Amino acid sequence: MDQTFVQWKRQCLSRLDLSKKASVDEHIEHVVSLLNSCEQYFTTSSCSGRIILIDGAPERSDVQKQNCVWLFVSHNKCKWDDVVCAVARSSGEAVLKFEPFVLHAQCRHLDDAQLLHSVAINSGFRNSGLTVSKTGKIITAVRSTHGLEVPLSHEGKLLVEHEYISFLTQIANQKMEENLRRIHRFYHNLQTALSTEKLKKLQIPDPPSSQGLQDSPHRPETEKGEAEEKEEKIKTSVYKRRRKRQQHHQTDCCHGDESSSGPEPEDCLDLFT
Amino acid sequence: MDQTFVQWKRQCLSRLDLSKKASVDEHIEHVVSLLNSCEQYFTTSSCSGRIILIDGAPERSDVQKQNCVWLFVSHNKCKWDDVVCAVARSSGEAVLKFEPFVLHAQCRHLDDAQLLHSVAINSGFRNSGLTVSKTGKIITAVRSTHGLEVPLSHEGKLLVEHEYISFLTQIANQKMEENLRRIHRFYHNLQTALSTEKLKKLQIPDPPSSQGLQDSPHRPETEKGEAEEKEEKIKTSVYKRRRKRQQHHQTDCCHGDESSSGPEPEDCLDLFT
Repeated sequence: MDQTFVQWKRQCLSRLDLSKKASVDEHIEHVVSLLNSCEQYFTTSSCSGRIILIDGAPERSDVQKQNCVWLFVSHNKCKWDDVVCAVARSSGEAVLKFEPFVLHAQCRHLDDAQLLHSVAINSGFRNSGLTVSKTGKIITAVRSTHGLEVPLSHEGKLLVEHEYISFLTQIANQKMEENLRRIHRFYHNLQTALSTEKLKKLQIPDPPSSQGLQDSPHRPETEKGEAEEKEEKIKTSVYKRRRKRQQHHQTDCCHGDESSSGPEPEDCLDLFT
Repeated sequence: MDQTFVQWKRQCLSRLDLSKKASVDEHIEHVVSLLNSCEQYFTTSSCSGRIILIDGAPERSDVQKQNCVWLFVSHNKCKWDDVVCAVARSSGEAVLKFEPFVLHAQCRHLDDAQLLHSVAINSGFRNSGLTVSKTGKIITAVRSTHGLEVPLSHEGKLLVEHEYISFLTQIANQKMEENLRRIHRFYHNLQTALSTEKLKKLQIPDPPSSQGLQDSPHRPETEKGEAEEKEEKIKTSVYKRRRKRQQHHQTDCCHGDESSSGPEPEDCLDLFT
């Protein structure tokens, strides 16, 4: 299994980057490098987050990427008049979107995927989740709930005032700023979690028993090393926050704790600190 | 482990529904009942999908649910003048959202979660994923990429024309229709997958070998029962489609195959069949 993972990683990283940009977005180069430098992970796709304006075919207003014209793409904050100029070229259904950071990493073992998933959730990427394929490929998808999707034109005709586009650009830029803060938090939490993991492995040379310990939440504290306790602390905080979210959502709405229904209190507070 | 799962299920289903509605949404009652009737699953939260208008506090335009006024909520298609009346009550930052179907189901074993996840992906819920907690809880989250998030007012002042709100309502209603089609497809695919699974278990009484068979994609066809082949077919189609998506996204954009960047060709076609 480990050998197969090593082969998968070699194949994936030696493959040409077939994305439009043919390179990793600059805002997440350090995140991608950190993951690919770990024997237990490699990234399969990523985007640092972007503000896009796509022009859908009139008869297919529920945007379809193929047959879509990309009128504007920015991986940084943008100016409202750039959006105004771009939307002027619309001949169909132009939609302004903010698409947050997304990253897919293949993981060697399930506990590697769990660690990455915990770090993602703890960093505010609440739509993150695992995929376990029947061929044994384990992928952690790091996803945010942080979005914006605003139709701007219909059959090429602008539906809103320029002032509204200016306001939308401010909102999109705010979301981009928050997105970059979350990426920073994710990178920092990932570094901490990985170094804690390494320390733990140094302290407990036998991998199976190490994994056994991870799966046993009822071991007495006295059995735990300092590094492990640190990791416990990180993980516990994640699960505490998730329990808190679940309770909150039960009383607040019918959506689940990973729904796309806006940031949680802790996410919102980050906007103002 | 199985005993613990049975206890978790009993506790969860006997608990009061603390959501605002205090009941399962009517459009997904049959889905929730089907899952809860299976020994290997129980639902922990769900929403059939809704069109909402929330009024955020002016100083917190990146909407926070707490301190938010819910001006309008509909789990069905809605009329544009209902939205116009609701937004007139805004005193802060009103945002119109379409939030698609979301469901969280706790699963007994990882392969139960994989099956549910495959069904979700195959039904168009591309942001679905698993969560595996350190205490052994396995949750499959069924999530769509299908959204809409449009700011309508700033500090209580309407930013758009009524005609635009009428257009937005049409878009939101189209998304609601597509959402209900996907729920129907999910229910149908789930029924098929579950009955195939049952048949398989009847044919292969020894669970470990049954699981072993699932994990081996290279077994000769002759070893496979009809039911198994049917299941293989369902699962293979899922993974084929996901590979197709991955290729498509590699050439189309930097986002991963589970990004929130619009529906896939097959999803779009569903809109017009």
